[in-house]
Parts: sequence; C-alpha cells; structure tokens
Amino acid sequence: MRISELSRRSGVATATIKYYLREGLLPPGRPTAATQAEYGESHVRRLRLIRALIGVRGLTVSAAKDVLDAISEGETDTHELLGLVFGVWPASGPAKETAPASQAAADSTEVSALLAEMGWTVTEHNPARQVITQTLSTLNSLGMEYDWRSLIPYAQLAERTAALDLDQLQDPDDPLEKAERAVLLTFLLEPALLALRRLAQEAESTVRYRDRPEGRSSRRRRAPGR
Amino acid sequence: MRISELSRRSGVATATIKYYLREGLLPPGRPTAATQAEYGESHVRRLRLIRALIGVRGLTVSAAKDVLDAISEGETDTHELLGLVFGVWPASGPAKETAPASQAAADSTEVSALLAEMGWTVTEHNPARQVITQTLSTLNSLGMEYDWRSLIPYAQLAERTAALDLDQLQDPDDPLEKAERAVLLTFLLEPALLALRRLAQEAESTVRYRDRPEGRSSRRRRAPGR
Repeated sequence: MRISELSRRSGVATATIKYYLREGLLPPGRPTAATQAEYGESHVRRLRLIRALIGVRGLTVSAAKDVLDAISEGETDTHELLGLVFGVWPASGPAKETAPASQAAADSTEVSALLAEMGWTVTEHNPARQVITQTLSTLNSLGMEYDWRSLIPYAQLAERTAALDLDQLQDPDDPLEKAERAVLLTFLLEPALLALRRLAQEAESTVRYRDRPEGRSSRRRRAPGR
Repeated sequence: MRISELSRRSGVATATIKYYLREGLLPPGRPTAATQAEYGESHVRRLRLIRALIGVRGLTVSAAKDVLDAISEGETDTHELLGLVFGVWPASGPAKETAPASQAAADSTEVSALLAEMGWTVTEHNPARQVITQTLSTLNSLGMEYDWRSLIPYAQLAERTAALDLDQLQDPDDPLEKAERAVLLTFLLEPALLALRRLAQEAESTVRYRDRPEGRSSRRRRAPGR
C-alpha cells in the first residue's frame, strides 16, 4: 500500500509517518519509484503500536523506539512483552538499571509485606511500588490510620482484575498487536475502572442507606440550602 | 483551644484558618478577648473536612462551603452525605440541576445497559457515567472492538470494591468525620488501586508466562538491545 493508505489504515497522519520513518521507529517501505514506497501489514501494526506507546502511554519517541526494538527482535515472550510496554523494566534492560538504594529501602517494609502476603512476584523496578508507599504515607500524614493490611482486600480484587486483563490478551498471536492491546486496555481502562467504582459506590450506598432510611430524613432527598 | 492549637490539631495554617473564618467556611469561635477566640472539637473536624474537600477533592472554596452548609444542617443521612462529597449531585440540590438532554442521550444506550445489567441505581448526575461512555468511544475510535458487555466482569469487581469502601465508613458517627473519611478514602486510594492492578498484572504474568515459558525464550530474561 502507498503511504496515504497506510495513514488511513493506521490513523496516523502522513507527516507523522514520515517523521517516524526518519527517526527509525518505522522501517522503510519497499521502494517502487524515486519518491514512492510500498508498505505492508507489519507497517500498519507497528504504527498502531507506536500510536499507543506515544499517544496513550505517553512515551517519548526515543523510549518508544527502544520498546519497539526490543519487541522486534522476535524472541520476546509474552511476559517480557508486557514488562516492556507497562514500563515494569526499562527497554534498556534490567542490567543497566541502578535502582536508588534509598528508594528500594523506602518501600521495603510495607510494600514487601503486602507482596509477601499476596504471594506476588514483582520486580524492584515496578513503579507501582512507590505509588502504594506514597498513598499510605499521605493517608497517615492526614491523620488516617491506614496500613498495608487495609489494602489486602483491595489487592485480592486487583488480582482478579489483572486476571481479566490478561485474559483479554490471549487472542492476538502477533507480538505487535498483543503489545498494542496491552497498552490500550491497561491505560485507557484506568479512568473507566475508577468510574465503575464511583457508580458502584452510589449504587451500594442506595441499597445500604436509601432504601432503609436512618430515620432522620425522608426517603426523598431534601433540597439543601433551604 | 486557641487558633494556634487549632492549626496544629487540624494541620491547616493559621493564615488559612483566618481566611476560612472570613469566608464563612468555619463558624467563629467563642470570643475571649478583643482579638482572641476559643475553638472547639467541632472546629477541628470541620477544618479537616475543608482540607479534604479543597486539598484532596479539588473543590473551590465556594463549592466546599455549599457542601459544608448542606452537611451542617444536621438532617443529612449517610446516602445524602456521600452523594454530596462525591459530587454525585451538586450541593445546590438536584432541583436546580438541568442536565443537558444531549449528554443524557449520549450515554443512555451503553451506560444504561450496563447499569441495568448490574442492577445499579445511579442518578443521572453522576459524572462517572460520562467517563464510561468516553472510554468506550476512545477504544472503538482506536480500532478496538470493545462494548459495554466487556465491562461487566470489571463492574462486578467494582461492586465488591465499593462494598469495601462503604464498610470503612461505618465507624464514625459524626457526619463531618464520616464525610472526611469518605473523601480521603475514595480519592486518595485511586492511584493505589491502579497501582495494585499493575502489581497484580506483573505477578499474574509471571505465573502464566514466566514459570511456563512459551518455548521461545529462556527462563531468565534476556537483556534486550544486544
């Protein structure tokens, strides 16, 4: 296909495709004339993954190239693929990573206890570790007594959520397609998962409190400010 | 207690407390001298809730005042309280709300179908509805076939998450304290819940793919880029 067709199929503008070609994110097409080239299905899949990595995951062009290069070597198994696209380890490889000892120490107690309790194997580089530490620290600084044990029931539900996530990645055999699906379904579902929690909170609150009024209020909501 | 002690107990700076007093978010203390006043426990609880509404929930001073006024009328049941602090309906009351018909129509098909399937009672004003619609629309615009039915298993887990959330609000009887707890545990836990999903994804991926390699890769991770 010509570059215009490639643009239509991938949803990426022609000028952007040319930029990715210059930057080496996309391999050149097969030349058919001095200024024309023929592109194939692998270009479409690769462009869709680039779009997901840069547009959705928020990677820089250079970081996206590292991920693509690692995937394209063709020996990437699914576990490595997911680690790469989720940023569990950098595309430059765990060997080059020098995790600051202070950070590792900071999260060691609470996050390690939670991971041990759940039986989860997680690399030290997973940035989600710091988020847990930070949340517990913020809640406690605001005077809420909240420790890692309070997160266990949430972690049990997260385990089932992750199983659903991975079930949805079974189908595509092509690693580029699988990687694109992993990025889109992990990152784009985040606001939806939080929104489902809000909807469920209201529904659950209705069941618990509205259908059985606590006796201080009528069943219909009173307009405040009057 | 004096204003300095109130500042220490609530974690809110003295200058900010004075600003809240001027704006009417905080009722005046009992005057003890021309320039001094005595504050009580209700001031501490109210300040902590103000801090949560403005600092964590991101409300404006004026919107926080509306919520506080509605709660302070003293006839607020738990369901109303949660609706107010979560922004399910505006503090000005549902009567004044005129939801754009176009928005209601936009989410009617997919979100309504999901809510009906789940048996959830949710007001039209819950902003989480639009988030679901938006996510499904984005995924489809990127070429993923994903409809509301795909969200059902996630919604079932969200239902259990919401039950955990509401369990944690049982204890405090004081409505100000309950409201503060609701805001902090809903909003501050959001990044932690997403982080738990990421950790669980890596752990689940390890169990599924790493412990049983797909035959194309050794058990130890090969450093990419070599």
